[in-house]
Amino acid sequence: MKNYFPNVPEVKYEGPNSTNPFAFKYYDANKVVAGKTMKEHCRFALSWWHTLCAGGADPFGVTTMDRTYGNITDPMELAKAKVDAGFELMTKLGIEFFCFHDADIAPEGDTFEESKKNLFEIVDYIKEKMDQTGIKLLWGTANNFSHPRFMHGASTSCNADVFAYAAAKIKNALDATIKLGGKGYVFWGGREGYETLLNTDLGLELDNMARLMKMAVEYGRANGFDGDFYIEPKPKEPTKHQYDFDTATVLAFLRKYGLEKDFKMNIEANHATLAGHTFEHELAMARVNGAFGSVDANQGDPNLGWDTDQFPTDVHSATLAMLEVLKAGGFTNGGLNFDAKVRRGSFEFDDIAYGYIAGMDTFALGLIKAAEIIDDGRIAKFVDDRYASYKTGIGKAIVDGTTSLEELEQYVLTHSEPVMQSGRQEVLETIVNNILFR
Amino acid sequence: MKNYFPNVPEVKYEGPNSTNPFAFKYYDANKVVAGKTMKEHCRFALSWWHTLCAGGADPFGVTTMDRTYGNITDPMELAKAKVDAGFELMTKLGIEFFCFHDADIAPEGDTFEESKKNLFEIVDYIKEKMDQTGIKLLWGTANNFSHPRFMHGASTSCNADVFAYAAAKIKNALDATIKLGGKGYVFWGGREGYETLLNTDLGLELDNMARLMKMAVEYGRANGFDGDFYIEPKPKEPTKHQYDFDTATVLAFLRKYGLEKDFKMNIEANHATLAGHTFEHELAMARVNGAFGSVDANQGDPNLGWDTDQFPTDVHSATLAMLEVLKAGGFTNGGLNFDAKVRRGSFEFDDIAYGYIAGMDTFALGLIKAAEIIDDGRIAKFVDDRYASYKTGIGKAIVDGTTSLEELEQYVLTHSEPVMQSGRQEVLETIVNNILFR
Amino acid sequence: MKNYFPNVPEVKYEGPNSTNPFAFKYYDANKVVAGKTMKEHCRFALSWWHTLCAGGADPFGVTTMDRTYGNITDPMELAKAKVDAGFELMTKLGIEFFCFHDADIAPEGDTFEESKKNLFEIVDYIKEKMDQTGIKLLWGTANNFSHPRFMHGASTSCNADVFAYAAAKIKNALDATIKLGGKGYVFWGGREGYETLLNTDLGLELDNMARLMKMAVEYGRANGFDGDFYIEPKPKEPTKHQYDFDTATVLAFLRKYGLEKDFKMNIEANHATLAGHTFEHELAMARVNGAFGSVDANQGDPNLGWDTDQFPTDVHSATLAMLEVLKAGGFTNGGLNFDAKVRRGSFEFDDIAYGYIAGMDTFALGLIKAAEIIDDGRIAKFVDDRYASYKTGIGKAIVDGTTSLEELEQYVLTHSEPVMQSGRQEVLETIVNNILFR
Amino acid sequence: MKNYFPNVPEVKYEGPNSTNPFAFKYYDANKVVAGKTMKEHCRFALSWWHTLCAGGADPFGVTTMDRTYGNITDPMELAKAKVDAGFELMTKLGIEFFCFHDADIAPEGDTFEESKKNLFEIVDYIKEKMDQTGIKLLWGTANNFSHPRFMHGASTSCNADVFAYAAAKIKNALDATIKLGGKGYVFWGGREGYETLLNTDLGLELDNMARLMKMAVEYGRANGFDGDFYIEPKPKEPTKHQYDFDTATVLAFLRKYGLEKDFKMNIEANHATLAGHTFEHELAMARVNGAFGSVDANQGDPNLGWDTDQFPTDVHSATLAMLEVLKAGGFTNGGLNFDAKVRRGSFEFDDIAYGYIAGMDTFALGLIKAAEIIDDGRIAKFVDDRYASYKTGIGKAIVDGTTSLEELEQYVLTHSEPVMQSGRQEVLETIVNNILFR
Repeated sequence: MKNYFPNVPEVKYEGPNSTNPFAFKYYDANKVVAGKTMKEHCRFALSWWHTLCAGGADPFGVTTMDRTYGNITDPMELAKAKVDAGFELMTKLGIEFFCFHDADIAPEGDTFEESKKNLFEIVDYIKEKMDQTGIKLLWGTANNFSHPRFMHGASTSCNADVFAYAAAKIKNALDATIKLGGKGYVFWGGREGYETLLNTDLGLELDNMARLMKMAVEYGRANGFDGDFYIEPKPKEPTKHQYDFDTATVLAFLRKYGLEKDFKMNIEANHATLAGHTFEHELAMARVNGAFGSVDANQGDPNLGWDTDQFPTDVHSATLAMLEVLKAGGFTNGGLNFDAKVRRGSFEFDDIAYGYIAGMDTFALGLIKAAEIIDDGRIAKFVDDRYASYKTGIGKAIVDGTTSLEELEQYVLTHSEPVMQSGRQEVLETIVNNILFR
Repeated sequence: MKNYFPNVPEVKYEGPNSTNPFAFKYYDANKVVAGKTMKEHCRFALSWWHTLCAGGADPFGVTTMDRTYGNITDPMELAKAKVDAGFELMTKLGIEFFCFHDADIAPEGDTFEESKKNLFEIVDYIKEKMDQTGIKLLWGTANNFSHPRFMHGASTSCNADVFAYAAAKIKNALDATIKLGGKGYVFWGGREGYETLLNTDLGLELDNMARLMKMAVEYGRANGFDGDFYIEPKPKEPTKHQYDFDTATVLAFLRKYGLEKDFKMNIEANHATLAGHTFEHELAMARVNGAFGSVDANQGDPNLGWDTDQFPTDVHSATLAMLEVLKAGGFTNGGLNFDAKVRRGSFEFDDIAYGYIAGMDTFALGLIKAAEIIDDGRIAKFVDDRYASYKTGIGKAIVDGTTSLEELEQYVLTHSEPVMQSGRQEVLETIVNNILFR
Repeated sequence: MKNYFPNVPEVKYEGPNSTNPFAFKYYDANKVVAGKTMKEHCRFALSWWHTLCAGGADPFGVTTMDRTYGNITDPMELAKAKVDAGFELMTKLGIEFFCFHDADIAPEGDTFEESKKNLFEIVDYIKEKMDQTGIKLLWGTANNFSHPRFMHGASTSCNADVFAYAAAKIKNALDATIKLGGKGYVFWGGREGYETLLNTDLGLELDNMARLMKMAVEYGRANGFDGDFYIEPKPKEPTKHQYDFDTATVLAFLRKYGLEKDFKMNIEANHATLAGHTFEHELAMARVNGAFGSVDANQGDPNLGWDTDQFPTDVHSATLAMLEVLKAGGFTNGGLNFDAKVRRGSFEFDDIAYGYIAGMDTFALGLIKAAEIIDDGRIAKFVDDRYASYKTGIGKAIVDGTTSLEELEQYVLTHSEPVMQSGRQEVLETIVNNILFR
Repeated sequence: MKNYFPNVPEVKYEGPNSTNPFAFKYYDANKVVAGKTMKEHCRFALSWWHTLCAGGADPFGVTTMDRTYGNITDPMELAKAKVDAGFELMTKLGIEFFCFHDADIAPEGDTFEESKKNLFEIVDYIKEKMDQTGIKLLWGTANNFSHPRFMHGASTSCNADVFAYAAAKIKNALDATIKLGGKGYVFWGGREGYETLLNTDLGLELDNMARLMKMAVEYGRANGFDGDFYIEPKPKEPTKHQYDFDTATVLAFLRKYGLEKDFKMNIEANHATLAGHTFEHELAMARVNGAFGSVDANQGDPNLGWDTDQFPTDVHSATLAMLEVLKAGGFTNGGLNFDAKVRRGSFEFDDIAYGYIAGMDTFALGLIKAAEIIDDGRIAKFVDDRYASYKTGIGKAIVDGTTSLEELEQYVLTHSEPVMQSGRQEVLETIVNNILFR
């Protein structure tokens, strides 16, 4: 088989003092941390689109990266070369999962029928590779945003024919997911939003978005999909306002339409920050609402207002994120998908491997440090003590729902001014730092 | 009676060509627009806190505005002087409503009992003025954020005694609202949020926030309050993350805890923009979710990241906002409360009147132009035509819920590529401009 | 000649009450406002790239707009079709200027020599059209950012060969500008910035950027270019940090390298807002620093963190901008270039015309209103009175530079506390509104 | 002497494994790193205002922190208690410098004369403490923004009497600085900016700002001040637009008015981020422009749009900052001033110590890691190699200024397409991480 990453060796754990750029310094796949191996915790996944397809184009420049896999021009051959390259890279990096959109893995044909045929031919080809390598599908999805027909949305298009087209694509992407044994199916509403309220029937669009999800659940459940449906929140880009702004917005939507049982969140770090939140905030919101699902592990640039999808290198952020993952009980069907791309100037194939190593080490270290924070116990104890007043007396009555405004007023009238305690933010931040850098 | 705004005359409508700074150019209270008088549409309200109390302090400077009403030092006398000044101003401006926090209208005493006594003494004093003038209460609320005891939150405090204190204050503020005939009660969670997740039990805090609201509803309904409860969304400031981030977040919360029947939104323009939304977006979200309630009419500065609470002067924005208000059927219990303050350098009493005139004229013109947009009909017709495909055939089946992924795939397989139409954003924006400036 | 905009008629002024989408409501080219005709004031220009080349691709989707001009595949034929289409559109709209990058007007060849040949062949073709129509070139520039060779910058590339390439392209673009009689040449540093400081020699890059500009000035002046060189500030996008962040940053750069005599600013509205400024701020900064040059007239979306390049429809903003233009004495060599593109969903050729009409009317109305504000005189008088204390006494001594800290302390010791006056922001904003909407 | 921080012991270095909250884990004052002791590198300073004066008030709440030092009501006694408390804290923490505004250290009197008397009485008191302890003044400044007289600016006020007042205050603050042996004097233009261009004479205000600085330089130099004048950039807050937006803006200003010889930058991390920059960007800009001076060490919250002035805990950022400090040759007259305050909920005196320990350890670790990055050498070597083409041939000619557009075009015509190299951002970020966490 052709070797698409000739410089990239099988990447192994060499420990923190290694200066080998093709070695892991922290990710030691089979090392046990907090009761499971690191690979069981992390469930790292390769993102097909950024890794195997995207060439570094941006609004001001064309592609810089050669993704023709040796000047292949036939679309189906190219699609197969990507499969080969993808499995080569996953094998070399020790990544056990991948994620795809229909459009990433197979070329669109001249007709829907041909597109479908293309898709399943490549699905079969991927299936073979999966069987050979043991690599698994984390989740699948349909790209219902790149083609011009989706310019006004997919399920939220003003054009019912486009809704139908989106639905048909989802059906096939779901079938492909089921066929490849995926336990997740993602809705990222790339054009599900509006550009201007002036031309938008907001109520109808939101209702229609729910209608398509309902159909997808019905179809999936009837056809053997027992995994999780995910919505991936994003506040803006490409549309001015995306309907799935953030976790809370999605929860409001799911609860309105009775979809909350079947859907969890696929939280992306960079989408969280675009929404004005921290990554850990979105994870925590999902957790306390029983909607923690999967993660798109990347990072944005706080100085930039668009989705930069950088490989994650912020260990502090990864630690707080993994702390939320551990608090949520860890992943079940979800995992850490690197929805990340190398910078436009990092145009060589080696850079892709460097990016993945950066990301995997960042989250591996985040996991180690999160586990240490839990073991250390100081932060959890502080929180526990801080809310102790809700475990007895008037606090317990509040939590138990056995009191009222009248009774609470009586309580205040007969007690002195509340005694306050410091929130100790500086101490807690210092403990995190001490654990991170010791 | 003392005259606190000696330069301010009774402000009258003089039309667009007037250069009298103490005249309305657009607000003609009894003129009928879209079936109701302008004052019936607008239901303008004075905000007690910004207008009568706030002195222009900011994080880098002390007050610039004299709010001692003639060097009054006794707190209760000062409180009464504010009542006098407030009713003088409302009368001169023709404002028929006001809004208050408990802490704005009466001074906190040494004990809760004394605070309560102070509150109801002033409530009685206000009641008298209301009876004399016909001015009404739009909504009341409790300030559960300024006092140090609320440093860690009110209903979301880590300290049950603080929860109790907040509850007791809400009871009295509700009682005051009922006594003054108010048809609205607002929850703005000034400290209901977190500074750092490290010291926060997110799940408990959100549960507790719901618990207090539930008690408030029970108490209010049992004691004759038949108005609307409102939540006022804000994403940040003062806390790093406020739980009521935006309308969608609040809807998720209300639906989780079964509170959606009793609560509507009090949308503030500047809070919308801090959350990354337009003002009209938040109004539209409330409308399509059946949660349109009341409005805090002000504006922020898109270059600044905090709540500037400026008097609204953006007619374009006010027009799009009033279009949403009209689409929602207009206000029932709600209104346009000017949660706005004059700039720190506009330190004279006259400036307050100028600010209100600016705001009232802006929304009056917004109303006139919104009604003209509706009368004109071009935009509504465009939207109606744009979604026509959902009224028949496959589109109708989608809306009616009588189709499925399988059927939609069959539809796609047997139809040609969807035919797209331009979204015509530039045309629609031009129509708005043409109506605004003709 | 082929008719590329078959639906677009010659667009004429029909006045504010027209509902004809292909008519101007405010732009009456030969009407005299503030001493000059509107067209002399506005000097509207068509942007070749957005108007004739760009197809609506964004980071999440391919093109939606057909820019093949009838499926032309030969690059040089296509380039000529664009010339035809551009002059057709300008003629129909009554636009008298255009702006171009080398890469917009002619295709890059296999070698630099071929690219140069292509360029000048099209330049000749354009020249003919200019002679036929009287349409003029506002400014030219070189696209030194789209091609992969510029991935690390042009004059700030780490690779001297790339610097040389950029220099050579600038030479030809300057020659083309001179040949076409352009009185402006723009530097927009699309990749002149950094992605990460970790791989950047900041000092060398800035020095090199100045070196290339110096060579360009020397070459231009020696070859008959007597127009203005412009720098177009932008803070970010595509690079993380662009060196020409804003007007002030550019002024610091020009003054450091002694380039301030030859360079003025080309201010883009959307770049101003991305930098955290208002459009009028950037214009005012240029004006008070003697660097007012030309304008890229467009607008961004305050909720979005990237360059949306929308056609300008904000009349309030355009009015404040034109007020600055008038204060600066109007354009000499510069003008209002619509660096704007229709939204991705506005994919029809008609939409381009609608966008230009929107923009031209917006700035025409801005001009009319700015002139009215000046005629009205209230704002200027307020400002004049406000600073009156600098015209006599101690204020005059300050301005004249004839006092000192010691003397000023003596002044304070012998005078009472300064008497303050209100800044009257609310009144001034109201005056603007009253003039806008009367 | 009274013990204001009774719980705070002398804070000592205990190493990374200590869990003592009152110990340094990284800051080992006399340990030599990169050729100097850590304390010589860091030159930590206490900020008088935040540490000894500020009580935790914010726009939505009153103070939470008792800063009456035992219910002292007499202003001069209170001022002295602050001196005692400040020197106690500095001594316990091993901080060798402090910074002050006139208004922090002494109360304003009823007249300017009295204020001056108060100031110098406290200056004498401080001087005594300095002599006793060896603690030094890093820099002084005048608070020309908090008092209502500065509502429209100080040197940029519309009122010449206010300019005079500001000048007089600066004279005394300079005298105090000289008397206390300070080697720095800071201009932070808290109200030097505008709220609206509508009431602003931008040109005059900028000219006047320069005039006052010129007078200050003349006075200072004539009276024995041989230290550095600093300008501290900030983009916004409290004014809408501050004239000293960022380093580049300040450089433009200094160069325009010929002030660049006497002024350097005082870079604040949180001000950098508010301007849309990274902390290290601002330091690098100062460095390459010969304007590196001093640092206000704090941090903001990327999700919040105002100056949060948090104690710095971001070790990654501190490392990149200290790398810039080392590249700039280290501090001469400047240092690391903690312009930081504890969170409003951290209201106890202990929290102040915790905050300082957090900040000192963060920068100590940043210093250690920056030195390791330099020792490691991989990043510097990569950068050196990357720009190698400018050391010979055409690159050298570019740098030497011995080439031209014509010659560079000839070069391109006779050479093949530039050969590009990857920017390797992911590798470089990984090296930083590996050094940080090894």
